[in-house]
Amino acid sequence: MSASTQSRISRVVVTPVAFGDPPLLNVVGVHQPWALRAIVELHTDNGLLGLGETYADESHLARLEAVASVLPGHDPYDLHGLHRLVAGVLGRETGGAGASFGGMLDVSSAVATVYSPFEVACLDLQAREAGRPVSDLLGGAVRDRVPFSGYLFYKWAGHPGLPDDDWGEALDPDGIVAQAKRMIDGWGFGSLKLKGGVFHPDDECAAIEALAEAFPGVPLRLDPNAGWTPEMSVRVAERLARVLEYLEDPTPGIEGMAYVAARTDVPLATNMCVIAFEHLAPAVAVNAVQIVLSDHHLWGGLRRSALLGGITETFGMGLSMHSNSHLGVSLAAMVHLAAASPHLTYACDTHYPWKTQDLIVPGVLSFEGGSVVVPTGPGLGVELDRDQLGVLHEQYLTCGVRRREDTVYMQSIDPSFRPNTARW
Amino acid sequence: MSASTQSRISRVVVTPVAFGDPPLLNVVGVHQPWALRAIVELHTDNGLLGLGETYADESHLARLEAVASVLPGHDPYDLHGLHRLVAGVLGRETGGAGASFGGMLDVSSAVATVYSPFEVACLDLQAREAGRPVSDLLGGAVRDRVPFSGYLFYKWAGHPGLPDDDWGEALDPDGIVAQAKRMIDGWGFGSLKLKGGVFHPDDECAAIEALAEAFPGVPLRLDPNAGWTPEMSVRVAERLARVLEYLEDPTPGIEGMAYVAARTDVPLATNMCVIAFEHLAPAVAVNAVQIVLSDHHLWGGLRRSALLGGITETFGMGLSMHSNSHLGVSLAAMVHLAAASPHLTYACDTHYPWKTQDLIVPGVLSFEGGSVVVPTGPGLGVELDRDQLGVLHEQYLTCGVRRREDTVYMQSIDPSFRPNTARW
Ligand SMILES: [Mg+2]
Ligand SMILES: [Mg+2]
Repeated sequence: MSASTQSRISRVVVTPVAFGDPPLLNVVGVHQPWALRAIVELHTDNGLLGLGETYADESHLARLEAVASVLPGHDPYDLHGLHRLVAGVLGRETGGAGASFGGMLDVSSAVATVYSPFEVACLDLQAREAGRPVSDLLGGAVRDRVPFSGYLFYKWAGHPGLPDDDWGEALDPDGIVAQAKRMIDGWGFGSLKLKGGVFHPDDECAAIEALAEAFPGVPLRLDPNAGWTPEMSVRVAERLARVLEYLEDPTPGIEGMAYVAARTDVPLATNMCVIAFEHLAPAVAVNAVQIVLSDHHLWGGLRRSALLGGITETFGMGLSMHSNSHLGVSLAAMVHLAAASPHLTYACDTHYPWKTQDLIVPGVLSFEGGSVVVPTGPGLGVELDRDQLGVLHEQYLTCGVRRREDTVYMQSIDPSFRPNTARW
Repeated sequence: MSASTQSRISRVVVTPVAFGDPPLLNVVGVHQPWALRAIVELHTDNGLLGLGETYADESHLARLEAVASVLPGHDPYDLHGLHRLVAGVLGRETGGAGASFGGMLDVSSAVATVYSPFEVACLDLQAREAGRPVSDLLGGAVRDRVPFSGYLFYKWAGHPGLPDDDWGEALDPDGIVAQAKRMIDGWGFGSLKLKGGVFHPDDECAAIEALAEAFPGVPLRLDPNAGWTPEMSVRVAERLARVLEYLEDPTPGIEGMAYVAARTDVPLATNMCVIAFEHLAPAVAVNAVQIVLSDHHLWGGLRRSALLGGITETFGMGLSMHSNSHLGVSLAAMVHLAAASPHLTYACDTHYPWKTQDLIVPGVLSFEGGSVVVPTGPGLGVELDRDQLGVLHEQYLTCGVRRREDTVYMQSIDPSFRPNTARW
């Protein structure tokens, strides 16, 4: 029996960080100037370090800290025990979102979101002990590179009162096509996703059609984050049927999605109406969605996300991957999960090109032809750059943002703004 | 990075074995005098040994050997690659059962059954490398002992032409109650299951009622292996509603089970109409079963069985565990799987008390109060007794049985016998 059987978590560090985020528009408003994340470090008594990354809204941070305080002594292999521990710590406080998502979705329990970064860090520890990549703990990589989709956003030239960023304005088809060209030229993406729900559907359809003309044969996705009525969703699906790879959350709710699904051949994807295991049975019962976007931050870590993958395969649904603004620790986890997901049927989403800074030692995660090469070193394969972690933590301390509030921020600029949910 | 990253499978040994089996009666006939199993050994170039156990019908053995011949050089962490390898080796030959189950069920592909013992042995290897029990690779044990159910059978006093076994005849309620007493006294089981489908349902109901009277409060199960019509199944469910924990496969097929389920509050369990992932969506769609009996031999190993567990939880079904006649390597794997299954809602089945010999070093797996203490040593926690392995292999060579054929064997004794499937 190796010494690893003795390893226990000895110290837990949760570090909130902030990094500059462009003014990306969406159905509930606009990204704030700073995006928040939290880095979870699990140190063991045999000198290993496991990493996780998650949301950093204040309420979520408090829950992470509550778990962190009782974690020393825990066995990093005991994931079921970790889950019980998290549920126990949160107790009756589990109602409501584990983190805000700009007001776009909610889950009934915070357990999965709080559990996730600790689970990822435990798997990082297990894999480092075994001298294996995390993908090996998930059954082994079935691909050596993970394809991602170029994530396009309507955006302003810059945040009001701050210097313009170097992406420039994108508020019409030409702006979106130019942004897509930069995405493809810079990262090599082989598919494109447009975040919609910002303008009238006719305008967003025109943008998709401009993309189809500018990049013939490139699979396209449109995600208005439930900005449309069911009827409008059907109309858009008809109009874009020949160019869309899938239509993501055109309208709110399982019933609304089922209404649309029954009236179009365009596959419907979601990261809004099926965001927890409790939503799967009702969604399957009415064939509401044809593709589920997994997200290990939201679904309770890598193993539970692998379970989701198996469920989608079993019930004849496709599998893609959702992204929020994130840093390199999350990207590494996403890449290992995707690499070890045989059923992954679409390129994954990522906000990674939009990030302005990172806190991992560079060189491990790079895009080649729109794909990230799966790290083969032990664990997640990424190391913290302590200097950069300090810089991003300092930014967190001084930036003033304490939770994601796209709508509040938008209303500070345009007091008449109201979320566009099911507006059109 | 540890040396473990270099470990590869260097040698594969598949050993068919036979052990004496009592004349246990069921819907398609009677157990033959010898039960067959195959032991899979995976040796690595760094001196480790991983174990698996599976069926040993001749057709299955040939498939195991075909996989064994191409396995050297394979990484024991690459389970997805192992699955592809098995599918590739079987190729077009995958149709039909991976093994016979006495004619009681069939699956459309042999991949899962052939893959299973190799997957278990790979997890045994991974866990031995990590110095951890296999349950730790499945998320950690949520219980330190796994409850089993006492498995009762109608039986003859002995095989015709052979000496009686020491269990004696059990062909009526008194015989079944006596058998149950021995099971409870010897192993401490806290629940009981009767294998039915042998006599008229009225007689089998009488046996269950006799058990309920003799052992008040002990949960009871009845499994006629689809011996009844849907209508008869409803009548039995009504009669036994107050004493049955669940009714297992009263009638054939998803449709028939759904008919029964709609007409009784007694939960229906199955290891016959839902025996592969492809059966789950149709069964869920019509609410055919309330409990699925997992079986890692049939469902493709421990990780896939854990996936099944997650699916049953997600879709509001219960989870129990099926058993065929088996030896200690299988029992160890079943115990690790059950220990690491948070959603396991019922005591597991096992034929283990019926086995007359074993091939593992004694002492690790023992029943206490109807439960098996979960091994905490590295891997599955069991070691081969090479002498006993030799004895059981010699028995295989000389016994003449080459596949499980309950009906053929029964007809050699009673030429008029026909399987009782949906007979009553
Ligand atoms: Mg989305
Ligand atoms: Mg059964």
